[in-house]
Amino acid sequence: MTRPLRIALIGTQFMGRAHSNAWRQVHAFFDSERIPELALVCGRDLAKTEAFARQWGWREAVADWREVVAREDIDAVDLSLPQHLQAEVAIAAAAHGKQIFCEKPMALNPDEAHAMSHAATQAGVVNAVNYNYRRAPAVALARQIIDEGRIGTIRHWRGAYLQDWLRDPGTPSGWKLQKQFAGSGPHGDLNSHSVDLARYLVGDIVEVSCHRRTFIGERPSVDDPAKRVPVDIDDASQLLVSFANGAMGSFEATRFATGNRNANQFEIYGSRGALRWHLEDLNRLEFYSDDDPPHLRGFRQILVTEPCHPYVGRWWPPGHVIGYEHTFVHSIADFLAAVAGQSAYRPDFEDGARVLEILDAARKADESSASVKLKPSGQG
Amino acid sequence: MTRPLRIALIGTQFMGRAHSNAWRQVHAFFDSERIPELALVCGRDLAKTEAFARQWGWREAVADWREVVAREDIDAVDLSLPQHLQAEVAIAAAAHGKQIFCEKPMALNPDEAHAMSHAATQAGVVNAVNYNYRRAPAVALARQIIDEGRIGTIRHWRGAYLQDWLRDPGTPSGWKLQKQFAGSGPHGDLNSHSVDLARYLVGDIVEVSCHRRTFIGERPSVDDPAKRVPVDIDDASQLLVSFANGAMGSFEATRFATGNRNANQFEIYGSRGALRWHLEDLNRLEFYSDDDPPHLRGFRQILVTEPCHPYVGRWWPPGHVIGYEHTFVHSIADFLAAVAGQSAYRPDFEDGARVLEILDAARKADESSASVKLKPSGQG
Amino acid sequence: MTRPLRIALIGTQFMGRAHSNAWRQVHAFFDSERIPELALVCGRDLAKTEAFARQWGWREAVADWREVVAREDIDAVDLSLPQHLQAEVAIAAAAHGKQIFCEKPMALNPDEAHAMSHAATQAGVVNAVNYNYRRAPAVALARQIIDEGRIGTIRHWRGAYLQDWLRDPGTPSGWKLQKQFAGSGPHGDLNSHSVDLARYLVGDIVEVSCHRRTFIGERPSVDDPAKRVPVDIDDASQLLVSFANGAMGSFEATRFATGNRNANQFEIYGSRGALRWHLEDLNRLEFYSDDDPPHLRGFRQILVTEPCHPYVGRWWPPGHVIGYEHTFVHSIADFLAAVAGQSAYRPDFEDGARVLEILDAARKADESSASVKLKPSGQG
Amino acid sequence: MTRPLRIALIGTQFMGRAHSNAWRQVHAFFDSERIPELALVCGRDLAKTEAFARQWGWREAVADWREVVAREDIDAVDLSLPQHLQAEVAIAAAAHGKQIFCEKPMALNPDEAHAMSHAATQAGVVNAVNYNYRRAPAVALARQIIDEGRIGTIRHWRGAYLQDWLRDPGTPSGWKLQKQFAGSGPHGDLNSHSVDLARYLVGDIVEVSCHRRTFIGERPSVDDPAKRVPVDIDDASQLLVSFANGAMGSFEATRFATGNRNANQFEIYGSRGALRWHLEDLNRLEFYSDDDPPHLRGFRQILVTEPCHPYVGRWWPPGHVIGYEHTFVHSIADFLAAVAGQSAYRPDFEDGARVLEILDAARKADESSASVKLKPSGQG
Repeated sequence: MTRPLRIALIGTQFMGRAHSNAWRQVHAFFDSERIPELALVCGRDLAKTEAFARQWGWREAVADWREVVAREDIDAVDLSLPQHLQAEVAIAAAAHGKQIFCEKPMALNPDEAHAMSHAATQAGVVNAVNYNYRRAPAVALARQIIDEGRIGTIRHWRGAYLQDWLRDPGTPSGWKLQKQFAGSGPHGDLNSHSVDLARYLVGDIVEVSCHRRTFIGERPSVDDPAKRVPVDIDDASQLLVSFANGAMGSFEATRFATGNRNANQFEIYGSRGALRWHLEDLNRLEFYSDDDPPHLRGFRQILVTEPCHPYVGRWWPPGHVIGYEHTFVHSIADFLAAVAGQSAYRPDFEDGARVLEILDAARKADESSASVKLKPSGQG
Repeated sequence: MTRPLRIALIGTQFMGRAHSNAWRQVHAFFDSERIPELALVCGRDLAKTEAFARQWGWREAVADWREVVAREDIDAVDLSLPQHLQAEVAIAAAAHGKQIFCEKPMALNPDEAHAMSHAATQAGVVNAVNYNYRRAPAVALARQIIDEGRIGTIRHWRGAYLQDWLRDPGTPSGWKLQKQFAGSGPHGDLNSHSVDLARYLVGDIVEVSCHRRTFIGERPSVDDPAKRVPVDIDDASQLLVSFANGAMGSFEATRFATGNRNANQFEIYGSRGALRWHLEDLNRLEFYSDDDPPHLRGFRQILVTEPCHPYVGRWWPPGHVIGYEHTFVHSIADFLAAVAGQSAYRPDFEDGARVLEILDAARKADESSASVKLKPSGQG
Repeated sequence: MTRPLRIALIGTQFMGRAHSNAWRQVHAFFDSERIPELALVCGRDLAKTEAFARQWGWREAVADWREVVAREDIDAVDLSLPQHLQAEVAIAAAAHGKQIFCEKPMALNPDEAHAMSHAATQAGVVNAVNYNYRRAPAVALARQIIDEGRIGTIRHWRGAYLQDWLRDPGTPSGWKLQKQFAGSGPHGDLNSHSVDLARYLVGDIVEVSCHRRTFIGERPSVDDPAKRVPVDIDDASQLLVSFANGAMGSFEATRFATGNRNANQFEIYGSRGALRWHLEDLNRLEFYSDDDPPHLRGFRQILVTEPCHPYVGRWWPPGHVIGYEHTFVHSIADFLAAVAGQSAYRPDFEDGARVLEILDAARKADESSASVKLKPSGQG
Repeated sequence: MTRPLRIALIGTQFMGRAHSNAWRQVHAFFDSERIPELALVCGRDLAKTEAFARQWGWREAVADWREVVAREDIDAVDLSLPQHLQAEVAIAAAAHGKQIFCEKPMALNPDEAHAMSHAATQAGVVNAVNYNYRRAPAVALARQIIDEGRIGTIRHWRGAYLQDWLRDPGTPSGWKLQKQFAGSGPHGDLNSHSVDLARYLVGDIVEVSCHRRTFIGERPSVDDPAKRVPVDIDDASQLLVSFANGAMGSFEATRFATGNRNANQFEIYGSRGALRWHLEDLNRLEFYSDDDPPHLRGFRQILVTEPCHPYVGRWWPPGHVIGYEHTFVHSIADFLAAVAGQSAYRPDFEDGARVLEILDAARKADESSASVKLKPSGQG
């Protein structure tokens, strides 16, 4: 028996669009006990929010998030807000017993995140952080291959998330380049994705060194191009880390890697195998195995579109590739399963908080020009 | 001002799913004067069709296509039927003045296709054949680059559409392997896509040689695996062609190319540039230009996800790749524009008929072990 | 015990250089009973030939090939002449009992080639045709993988040899564009390499269709750019073939594939595996196997630089890639082994003659616009 | 007018072979005023050295390097020794006025290297360090493109040199794993190549953080597999650096990156372009340029085999790729030009010393868990 799950989406920017699409799509492709109803969307500008509602099929539009979290006809809230606004809303939603699906980064800092986690745990609600790349079929397959023991003991994580949209000094400064709103630059925005993937695939991180850099210290104001405003966040951030299990790791996040639009990528080297993935070719996983006969060893290019692969069999026949947005549908499908009590959702708020702790330690490492050790987390 | 366009979908198999998804998605991403209403879906088995309707959001399910084409509350029909059933329905739909969106291959043979084209033209309705790969952004960009004169005079088309789902002799024979239903094997099924792309990108074809082969002459019956039934269609088909403009072309379609699930691909070589595309990496277009300084020439890997690229700016930010299904949304978006009178839809039924003529000439070439010339078509 | 093998090289153009390099290099890397002595080089222009001898380390330079083949202090001749000159010299060399290493194409036509083969067989001398790409380590590994049964029954050969040095209509016409000297264009020059590879990897060819084309009918004379001379050879040539073992094949050779300098490549699809190779990345072999677990299947990128791989362990440690010229050294190493009686050299003159027969049949197929059947050859 | 340059090679291991090959080959492909004579080879075991001499064409074999550097009939010495032996020999050779071609790493530590540099400068002899990868044509082209201003201000260097030959804990420990002989593991062996490339392409390094790791603390003894010996060098080493010009850099060197045999690679991102290179495909350079029209931007795959490209035109026609060993020939060719006074050789001993300084600072950074600043070097 299926029954509806009444959703309220808070936030109507890029992530609001991507989440709306996923809520609309999930039921046509994935079975679930709970069928999402696009009940309510909330945005600051009511007129724009109403247009958004029409475009994406939300039944109602409102402007006040406090009303949303309090409404009895809402079962779950989807937080797609800038990160400095998420904690307050999440804690209030938990207090009203709403299930919570939260876009990353979940908060401005670890303290906020832990408070959110505490509130959700107390309320006993599902608390999901949407690090969507975990749910690219190729990434989920990478995890499966690791769990099958096929690459042995992991030695190296090499992650990078390269963008280039800030390479032009003339690009104006918006809220994403201001510390009070964005917290940080790619150090948080992009590295948080990579750190989540590393924790998912390799394990927890216990030591970190870091170099951050702001290449362009001033930019034209987005409101008045004739005026120049200071940039107080990082343009690029590099990390070297130690994992709890003895592996080494490196991370590199930047908005200045010309030619890379959204190049989220990783390499994992184990004692008897290896894995590589790149978002621009997201249906592909590279896998190397010492189990192959010596004369036949090489990186396999696995096209992850088979029914036996995670998630992707719900879409189209083999070879009919999927795209970026599908990772959101997979997240929503798993969230619905968690709400139905069929499985736990990971990464949860505690995972999300740990990512922020690691990045906070990295920030301190950069500021002190010395490596910083982290207390091991309870979670892996 | 927008107003609804009431759609009836006929056919609920793979293409029925892919079209349903596209009808659902188009309005959220593409502006159009006519907003599709998922009014009616038609399938032989009413119970299954009703379940299909619930899953995909069609308002009503019926079992009789004759009823569908006659209904006054339907503006457009979407034909997603096996090819031996399409002509009769299309002609009836045209007679009732319905706009027609028709999956490929549109018919069993050129005669049927011409009759469909005649009926649609007489009725003055939009008649679209869904050769969806034309509308992969990278393919549309290839056409734009050709139109900009950047590769000069085209000398070579090298097309291939490689699949491997029949490589195991134990795979049973279904309707797709029977001539009376499928007409042909990859000769029609896959080559028709390639021939449409070649006509779109290079031009019309005027001479053809062909080798076809059935590697496995008998297969287990899909109904009774203990019984073996003959295979009377091709397993693979190769063409050499001359284009009207003097270019040479080759085509290769097979279901026995182990390791290739759906490898639709082409290379185009012109007098001063070149283009290459492969469906498994569909967001990418390779482009070579003699306009580059000599020491810097090389195939550019264009990630076709920019706002300045065809279609794709309607989806996500640069670098956030799309998949197979999006090509259908683009087809539907253009169909809606054609219904609104904003542009002509190509390929139309006449284009589709020409593709069948070319493949029919190729069949004769293979049967006679000699090349066959075609009368030039009026269309390019 | 080693002893010298006194070599005479006839021809000092591109192939003369490549062969000289191989004769110089072979002993430092490959053990052999016979150590080549660079005794004599022969070219029409004695002064130039003397400079060539100094540059490459040949002991003596002469201008008359008749003297060369008759000299008692020569054990083996290396024919690196234009193809219209090879037969006469080869037959004379055989008559004098010289071992023969002959550059491809070995002759202008099958009759010449058979005469050469007859002469060499009568004389009992080693007769090698230098289809050097057989001896790229990745290609030799492909053969090994096929012999190990890893790709099953071969269904498809897709070969292409794409160059682009004639794409500019202003490129002048030299002897390579004149039928009396070159015999043909890429139809013979490039396709002969591909046909040899296909015979080596798949088997003999028994039927062929062909399209050839001359895109630019007149070019500036190489002697007088103001004068235009007709081009009477093909600019491009495409073949469809049937192999004796039931596989299908296609070939494409051209000098107009802009962006491809020397893109010799093939794909082989078998019933349970596949192989792909491309000269621009010649140390790599792609291999797909249905023996892999279903969720791990994909084309392996084998870097063919391991000691367990053919030839390449004689060079450098794993991962230290080799280049084009090394294939010639491998040919020479195998020729030396054949002279020492340790192994037979393939392709021999009979193989080379068969390649010419197949291309001759293809020419007739093109001229008659019909497919041509070949009598099966004795050799595989 | 040409005249001979009498060479003495000291060292007959892997590098002795690679250098011998280069000395033999250079004259056939590169013009130079000085023609190398393979006069003398020196190795500890005279019998083996004599066999080496026969194989590679050295006229004479000796066992005592002191004799070599003192001989009047020697013009230049080639040092291909383990790094702990190089300084003493180099200084003695300089004292005798020999031109010096020295394999990397040139010494155990910066002090030795500076002493070598001082001795060579005092003697006024050419002092070359063979960081051979600078002279891969694609790498030299990268430098040219940077010098042409095509990628603008450099922001990011991402270098990695990945090997995997130690991934098996059962691999025995030889001298390469002992600090007293090898100095370090990949920290010095592989990173030194990367640091040299970074200095060549980006500029000098002024700050460094570092993580090193020994994954396997004990290994079977190479002499007695039943015995286990401690490993006192690093298995992997990661660096984050700041360049003097404001760019950021990362380096990663390891012998545990399963699937990578010799994967020397880099990415460089500038304000308006980017470059990427990978040794496994060494003839290729990837180049991205914002000068391209927006809809045509992408990484070009430049096949660096044209006459207009550095070095490579001396070998074979376009598209005929070269390999690893050719970089050594290019080094030798440039060394000969330097000896002839036609150009200065870089990297010289001062460059080599700076590389060691940077790696020494990195070692200290790792030991102190803090970043280390370097005084700017005089050289770029």
